[in-house]
Formats: sequence, C-alpha cells, structure tokens
Amino acid sequence: MAENKATIILLSGDMDKVFAAFIIATGAAAAGMDTTVFCTFWGINAIRKDTLTGKSFMARMLGLLNRGGLRRLNPSKFSFGGMGRWMFSKMMVDKGVASLEELRETMIDLDVHLLACKMSMDVMEITPEDLIDEVEGVVGVAKMIKEAASSSIQLFI
Amino acid sequence: MAENKATIILLSGDMDKVFAAFIIATGAAAAGMDTTVFCTFWGINAIRKDTLTGKSFMARMLGLLNRGGLRRLNPSKFSFGGMGRWMFSKMMVDKGVASLEELRETMIDLDVHLLACKMSMDVMEITPEDLIDEVEGVVGVAKMIKEAASSSIQLFI
Amino acid sequence: MAENKATIILLSGDMDKVFAAFIIATGAAAAGMDTTVFCTFWGINAIRKDTLTGKSFMARMLGLLNRGGLRRLNPSKFSFGGMGRWMFSKMMVDKGVASLEELRETMIDLDVHLLACKMSMDVMEITPEDLIDEVEGVVGVAKMIKEAASSSIQLFI
Repeated sequence: MAENKATIILLSGDMDKVFAAFIIATGAAAAGMDTTVFCTFWGINAIRKDTLTGKSFMARMLGLLNRGGLRRLNPSKFSFGGMGRWMFSKMMVDKGVASLEELRETMIDLDVHLLACKMSMDVMEITPEDLIDEVEGVVGVAKMIKEAASSSIQLFI
Repeated sequence: MAENKATIILLSGDMDKVFAAFIIATGAAAAGMDTTVFCTFWGINAIRKDTLTGKSFMARMLGLLNRGGLRRLNPSKFSFGGMGRWMFSKMMVDKGVASLEELRETMIDLDVHLLACKMSMDVMEITPEDLIDEVEGVVGVAKMIKEAASSSIQLFI
Repeated sequence: MAENKATIILLSGDMDKVFAAFIIATGAAAAGMDTTVFCTFWGINAIRKDTLTGKSFMARMLGLLNRGGLRRLNPSKFSFGGMGRWMFSKMMVDKGVASLEELRETMIDLDVHLLACKMSMDVMEITPEDLIDEVEGVVGVAKMIKEAASSSIQLFI
C-alpha cells in the first residue's frame, strides 16, 4: 500500500540533477511526507565528504576522475571545465536560490533519510567514513525496493 | 490516494527525452488519465517560444547556449553539431512518426496540463511571455509534489 | 489500483544506467513483485543481439553509431573510447558484482518481462529477430502506460 512517503533514487552526480533531487526531497519533506534519498553510483558524490578515496589503482583512478563533494559537481550541460558550474552557482546566488550545501542542511533538518548504496560503495571503494555523518546507513537494493514500493512518490534521477 | 492521474517531471532538454515525455503524456491522456507535464531546467525549452531571453549578462550567455524552442533540441547522443537532430527527425518523418510540434499539439488537444517551474524561470530569467500560450501556469515545487503524490504514474525524465 | 508490480522504462543505453535498471528489476522480482522492463530508444541495446541492423542508409548509419549488445555499452561518464567501460567492468569483476550478462540471465530466471517499444524499433529499423529470444513482445506505449498505472513502482531510467 502506498503510504505518505517519497523515495528518490539518485544515480546522477550532475549538478542540475542533484539540485532537482534535493529540491524535490525538501519539498516532499516540507509537505509532511516521510522522505528518503537513496544515493547510488555518481549520486554518492552528493553525500561524500570532500576527500579522495580508494586504495587500489582502479579506485584511485576513478577517485581522481570522480572527485567527491558538492562543490565539485558540474551541470549535465555546458560544463566548460567548471565554468558552467560557476555560472549556475552565481545565477542561483543572485536570484536568492539556496545552494546545494544549504539545501542539504535543510533536508537534514527536515529528517530526510539519506542512504547510500552498498554495492556502489564496494565497487568504488568508498567507505562509510568517506560519507557525511548525517548519512543514516549503507544499504542494499532490497531495502530501496521496499521503501519505493510503499511510497506514493518514487523517482529515479 | 493514487488517482487516475499521471505526472511527468521533465528536466531534460534532450530531443529523445522530450520526445519520450511527450509520447508518454499523450499516451496517458489518451488512456483517460488526468496528465500533467511539469517542466523544469532544460525541460522549459520544450514549452518556450523560439526567442532569446534574459537581460543580465549571465542570462544572455545562458540564453545563447540554451536556445529555446522545440526545433533546436539535440538528442542526448550523436549530436554532431545538429546532424543527429536532422538524422533523427528525418527517420521519424520517413517512418510516419509525429514530430515534436505535432505531439505537443496533440497533448494540448488532449488537455494535458503544461506547467513551468517558477524557480527555474527565475534563475534563467525566463518570463511567462517567453512560454507558449498554452502553458497553464508557473508553479512552485509544492504544487508539483502535490500532483505527483496523488498520481498513479509519476516519472522523472 | 497499485498492485504488487514494478515497471521500469529504460530509455538509456549508458552502461551505468542499464546496470541500475537490471539491478532494480532483479531486486524487485526477487522481492516477489511482478516486474516489467520496457526498453525504448537506446535502451533497446540492452536486449539486442550483437549485430548490425537496418537496411536504409539512415538506419545503417545509426546502426554503426549505435552498435547493439550489452558488451558495447559505455558508462554515462568517463567513456574514454571504451576505457571507462573496461575499468568499470574490471572493478565490478574484482568486487564480485555480477556482469550485465549475468544480471540479464538472472532477470530472465526470475520471470522479469522484457518488452521492446514498437515505435523505437520502427524508427531504428530494428526487427524482432534482432532482439534476444527472451523478449516477450514488441508493444506500443498504451501497453506500457497500462502496466505503469497499475504498478506500485514505476521508474524512468
């Protein structure tokens, strides 16, 4: 049965999509919905501390390419080696829109559940210590399916 | 409670994804579902008139990069500076598939609700006058959450 | 009414997104949900035999660009002309994660319904013979809407 819940599966690490995920999660939580953001693949960057991780050559190489932390996300278009990110951030600040960091704080204040995908973390050699402290848990796909199946909103971003 | 409604959140401005969104919305409306397409970020291009917008340097620069109008959308792959768009459009015409313009007309005929995201419009300095006349309103995320939560189909594209 | 069903609309042909779709479908089926993966556009590659298709110049050109088969998918980021694919595959093998081929086998074993979008196949001149034998049918958007509307999980990937 669908309950008053929202589940967002965040695979993307693109700035605009992480932004959309955070805005939707904040909106759902503000509307009184029990809201979960399940971060997988590149989406893990949205809940990572700003550090390099992984010990193997593969993981180090992926870590170099895939630097964590909200301040390093590029939009899905018009990246221009970071120029697009700067342009978007500046326009959002100019228009009084909350930054990704502020939105994440608001999500946490509104008790949005932040979960990380266990398999993605294993593959990318990211440890729980690499994630921000507010992440509630590192879980498998079964837990995510269970949440999504009982939610009245489920979105894959 | 899930009603006989469909809500599509269209963030992408890629030709293939806009196409998918329009086809799904048309199909849902044709099946008797009360259907809403909520356009945000690049998805706003799918409901824009074909004009340059924004007054500040930032908005003009973004406007130049992000030219509105259905005829300017590129597929998410094989763009080749517009070549991919031409190729796809040609194949679709050859196969008797409706164009994006025709699909949008059909959506409007089937009373699909076209909504624009207020925050995206503020950030990109797009005004209601820049949108096609059939757009029903410029709304916030709270309205979108409310629609999605009561829909039996909700998709993020 | 939402039944114990999951419907995944797979438009993407990116390796990471196909992977996510297969993992979610496998997880949903393992949890006892009646699960359908509806493949459209690039997602058709996830259920194609590894052959070139299409007879017209357009279709041949698209076929050349859009080589089918699971072994040819690239991740949505860090493609490096196939290097990213190799790196991801290697890390997944190293970590004991199932390959795309193994996941597809598991989906089939768990009776996940694999469907192909008729319109996409027409446009790309892909015939039913080009698809793997386990595909249950080539269907229109109306069938997909019907499945999604009665599912408690619907995701667009």
